[in-house]
Amino acid sequence: MEQFEVHILGCGSALPTTRHNPSSQIVRVGNELFMIDCGEGTQLQIRKSHQHFSRINNIFISHLHGDHCFGLIGLISTFGLLGRRHPLHIYAHPMMRTLLMPQIEYFCQGMQYEVILHDINPKTAGIIYEDNNVTVETLPLNHRIPCCGFIISEKPKKRHLRGEMAEYYNIPTYARQRIREGEDYTTPEGETIPNERLTTPPDPSRRYVYCSDTTPVPAGLIEKIRGADLLYHEATFAESEKGRAAATFHSTAQQAAAVALEAEAKKLVIGHFSSRYDDETPLLAQAQEIFPATILAKEGLTIKI
Amino acid sequence: MEQFEVHILGCGSALPTTRHNPSSQIVRVGNELFMIDCGEGTQLQIRKSHQHFSRINNIFISHLHGDHCFGLIGLISTFGLLGRRHPLHIYAHPMMRTLLMPQIEYFCQGMQYEVILHDINPKTAGIIYEDNNVTVETLPLNHRIPCCGFIISEKPKKRHLRGEMAEYYNIPTYARQRIREGEDYTTPEGETIPNERLTTPPDPSRRYVYCSDTTPVPAGLIEKIRGADLLYHEATFAESEKGRAAATFHSTAQQAAAVALEAEAKKLVIGHFSSRYDDETPLLAQAQEIFPATILAKEGLTIKI
Repeated sequence: MEQFEVHILGCGSALPTTRHNPSSQIVRVGNELFMIDCGEGTQLQIRKSHQHFSRINNIFISHLHGDHCFGLIGLISTFGLLGRRHPLHIYAHPMMRTLLMPQIEYFCQGMQYEVILHDINPKTAGIIYEDNNVTVETLPLNHRIPCCGFIISEKPKKRHLRGEMAEYYNIPTYARQRIREGEDYTTPEGETIPNERLTTPPDPSRRYVYCSDTTPVPAGLIEKIRGADLLYHEATFAESEKGRAAATFHSTAQQAAAVALEAEAKKLVIGHFSSRYDDETPLLAQAQEIFPATILAKEGLTIKI
Repeated sequence: MEQFEVHILGCGSALPTTRHNPSSQIVRVGNELFMIDCGEGTQLQIRKSHQHFSRINNIFISHLHGDHCFGLIGLISTFGLLGRRHPLHIYAHPMMRTLLMPQIEYFCQGMQYEVILHDINPKTAGIIYEDNNVTVETLPLNHRIPCCGFIISEKPKKRHLRGEMAEYYNIPTYARQRIREGEDYTTPEGETIPNERLTTPPDPSRRYVYCSDTTPVPAGLIEKIRGADLLYHEATFAESEKGRAAATFHSTAQQAAAVALEAEAKKLVIGHFSSRYDDETPLLAQAQEIFPATILAKEGLTIKI
């Protein structure tokens, strides 16, 4: 199966610490790198992760708090210095245009590529990006300011052509794609071979869901993320800070786990940790009480989906 | 003597690497921390250096290239989150106001302290900051865009009162400050004691000079930095890249050393290294051929002046 993995570049919250960078991650689907959020220092984290800068073509910003977007201008500037020629697409709240464009105009003069800003409405769910392999959808979240999560879903894949059958019937190359799309095959002699004899089922289409920053994903949206192969849900606080989590529109680790359980996610990764924790293993333990398949995000971590 | 030291937070150039952060340093004079330049990730570097955020009250920006100022908004935001109440002064090219203020207004709502921007004219030399202990002066440099260095000078200090003489003449506390400033002392009996019998000379006033980014400091400005206790001069390139240094308005390590020699600096620290070098010891060797008292800047390095 094609690569589909998440690289954590930063999983801290508003105050950076020596342990955590602010929010950013790269979702790799095949050779394409999608970036979600871009806190200060993200470009340094990319260098450390040895990802290819040039393969990042689409950046999705969940909301306009600094710890999710202060790294954009540095990254854009560096792309320019590296001689980038192909456009960079940024999907964000419309206000991003007002804040970012004057900086690009001033600091990135002579840059050889275009930054294309796409306004997103964080309050509605909908597809904001689509290519041959994936769709990216917004998921309205509940934070102090307009904020959305992102659902990255592989599109339905083609069936696998059984090699021995292709050989037996000597199926020409031009006919193979259609068979993989589900058609039967008619031999030159006029015999119809049913598709299920020629193919095996396609690989499953995988789905990654990113939810930060937010109170626990509300029940009304659970259907949208049901069965996700991997759910990233913020867990800014431990259970003892539940009141503070509610007051600041964040979640506790247990609340994140309850969302994963309710949504029947296959795996949960928690992040966006408050700077007050020197060690997040208590948060992990609290989450695992409810949803055992939970792991902690960490800078440098790669999670295969 | 009071502490007077330079902490290197970043000494890379435009492209950050896994070895170097973009430009920033803290100059500590007593309990006051002055920041010079503030590239992306500077606030993380401060955390690592265990400096006190709250003691930074004045930030001097040499020029408006991103690798010297992209970290400002994150730092300002973090000061706000940490509950800062006292004003922060930023000294920069007037354009900084246009670029920074909209970001502060949007991202730092409800912040409890004031950011005060002071316009500087990088093309003229002059005092831009002064307190009881130090002055900070601009030094016009020669870069692709308006750019200035900074000279941080201790003011002339008071003479030391000799303890045994103060005791012998039973000099009252109120009279001691004036004696330290050079006055003679007249005893209650009317006897005048000459100052040189009561005091020893003051500690020398030290001077730190920061020069980045620039072609070698031109001869006409050498007088301004003559005898500096410590000179930071950019050395973006090795001697083999002399042409490229000139073309991009930067310096080689040997050119930096020649400036230190000509200016009779006591010590030279070179920095702003190009990302092409995995190891700067050749640059050091080249500089030391001309000016032996040269050291390499490095993140985390503290240089006592």
